[in-house]
Amino acid sequence: MPQKVRIALDAMGGDHGPSVVVPGADLSLARHPDSEFIFFGDRAVLEPLLVRYPRLQAVSRVVHTDVAIKMDDKPSQALRAGRGKSSMWLAIDAVKKHEADVAVSAGNTGALMAMSTIHLRTMAGIDRPAIAAIWPTLRGESVVLDLGATIGADTQHLVDLALMGSAMARILFDLDSPTVGLLNIGVEEVKGLEEVREAGQILRERNLPHINYFGFVEGDDIGKGTVDVVVTEGFAGNIALKTAEGTARQIGSYLKAAMSRTIWARIGYLFARSAFRALAEKMDPRRSNGGVFLGLNGIVIKSHGGTDAEGFAAAVDIGYDMVRYELLAKIGQALVPAARVDTSTQAAGGAAL
Amino acid sequence: MPQKVRIALDAMGGDHGPSVVVPGADLSLARHPDSEFIFFGDRAVLEPLLVRYPRLQAVSRVVHTDVAIKMDDKPSQALRAGRGKSSMWLAIDAVKKHEADVAVSAGNTGALMAMSTIHLRTMAGIDRPAIAAIWPTLRGESVVLDLGATIGADTQHLVDLALMGSAMARILFDLDSPTVGLLNIGVEEVKGLEEVREAGQILRERNLPHINYFGFVEGDDIGKGTVDVVVTEGFAGNIALKTAEGTARQIGSYLKAAMSRTIWARIGYLFARSAFRALAEKMDPRRSNGGVFLGLNGIVIKSHGGTDAEGFAAAVDIGYDMVRYELLAKIGQALVPAARVDTSTQAAGGAAL
Repeated sequence: MPQKVRIALDAMGGDHGPSVVVPGADLSLARHPDSEFIFFGDRAVLEPLLVRYPRLQAVSRVVHTDVAIKMDDKPSQALRAGRGKSSMWLAIDAVKKHEADVAVSAGNTGALMAMSTIHLRTMAGIDRPAIAAIWPTLRGESVVLDLGATIGADTQHLVDLALMGSAMARILFDLDSPTVGLLNIGVEEVKGLEEVREAGQILRERNLPHINYFGFVEGDDIGKGTVDVVVTEGFAGNIALKTAEGTARQIGSYLKAAMSRTIWARIGYLFARSAFRALAEKMDPRRSNGGVFLGLNGIVIKSHGGTDAEGFAAAVDIGYDMVRYELLAKIGQALVPAARVDTSTQAAGGAAL
Repeated sequence: MPQKVRIALDAMGGDHGPSVVVPGADLSLARHPDSEFIFFGDRAVLEPLLVRYPRLQAVSRVVHTDVAIKMDDKPSQALRAGRGKSSMWLAIDAVKKHEADVAVSAGNTGALMAMSTIHLRTMAGIDRPAIAAIWPTLRGESVVLDLGATIGADTQHLVDLALMGSAMARILFDLDSPTVGLLNIGVEEVKGLEEVREAGQILRERNLPHINYFGFVEGDDIGKGTVDVVVTEGFAGNIALKTAEGTARQIGSYLKAAMSRTIWARIGYLFARSAFRALAEKMDPRRSNGGVFLGLNGIVIKSHGGTDAEGFAAAVDIGYDMVRYELLAKIGQALVPAARVDTSTQAAGGAAL
């Protein structure tokens, strides 16, 4: 582990670019003074901004590029236009070249995942990357993955997701063996879930290190916080995430409408203002902003595109933690022979361990 | 269409059995005086209860059975124990024999779907059944399907879901051509969604009757009410439904905690009580209680197991509407040759129509 945590920032990513990335980095630096930063982007915009944050400026350097990936570029367009020269690519490239320990971008998810996968490649023993997020729950927070990096999952991929999600949860929640649940649906004996059942069997029987396998969980268990890590394939995971966000906004709208409907409700709102503020804070998506790309030879963090400096700082914080507490080493430790679906050739070795 | 809407009730289904089913039927009868009922279940319990509801008793008969399906029976267990004799089976059987127009059960979903599919069989032209629910949205309500009847979906099944969901939405929302969206994830160019893309192409290009195809929607569009009908395969649909329910409960808990945290918040709550009541009503799952089984030769409605009389009445109401406004005929009309994925053999016929 390096003395300092070196953070590469795609300064042009997101809806607001440097005006959010720079102050966001400064907020995170205040919490982690052992960070240093490389900003990739338009020097003419970045340098005057950095002057306003002397503490940050002292530990930062700027690498200029004119090329920025647009938020609505398709991955293939982004690669054509930005490979080798965009702020997003260069941030990832810094990780590839070991000039940085982690890259953080608020740019578009598809492009960031495509560039990260092509440039960093998947870890030995992992076939496909994943996106994990921190999901606020009634019990605290949980890690949920995959949120859409890949669609569909065979048994091995589900087991790999469990290993990678647990490594992330060990860091975030400071646990030795996080509880892990496989997302499933309640209807028993429905066909088509063989891979989920097989993955469950492997997680239950093989006594993998640093995993406390709970069993199947359903959609409503995510918000309850039934387990520390919720594992599912990317399509269902993405639908779950977006549906939860939609439901939260929907209820927020109802609440707002209800609170302005009558004069009494408005008076009530005034009395309960601090309670509503606490509620809003509880539901604040900035608090858990930061999707972690897992399974690659390097750490990449995706911030929401529309976030503000506080939200971007939360994404940088997550990147810092993933480096400081050695996410990649922890995933490596989890990739034991017993975690292979087909252990026929490794069975003897596994038993000898 | 029969003069009366004849409703078969699994009187022993659900967590509360007859004590909810009987008063629920009475509430629905008050709204639809042209209903009549057959109660399947324990005569010794049902008849004394019915005496308390003379209006209902006058249009009801009881068919006795000792056998009830348990809420936690697996479908295979339920079939072994209850085929031909349980209250659930007999209610479905009444639809099969044209003694009733619709069956309503609060019993366990897996058993009800298995029995309905085995006994009623899928409609000609439909390969697999589906479960559709009415989802409250910011714009009103939408139909969402499939919620877990079957896992995975090929192109034809997705198109069929669109046809069946539209038929249901035509009735519920009194629309000629409901808008239809295919649930998808935002990341472009991800592999594995060929069937969703192909289904979208068919819905867009073939000008199917009574469908206004909108395009892809994401998880957060469900709560927004972007479209009248949201189509997805059963695994993702079930995860979406349960995740939304979990999120709603989670926010409800936060709100409750916030409102009792300080004396000011409690006072505010008192002022805003009617607003909170309106909010609770808005979020009341009883209002839209009733999953509709689609694609079978008969109409079966699934009520939540834990619901009360008001919620069960809502499920009966939906069953009434599906009969009165001819769901099966509307689905039949939608099954035009142009809705077949492979129209090579029917193309000439389709063009001649």
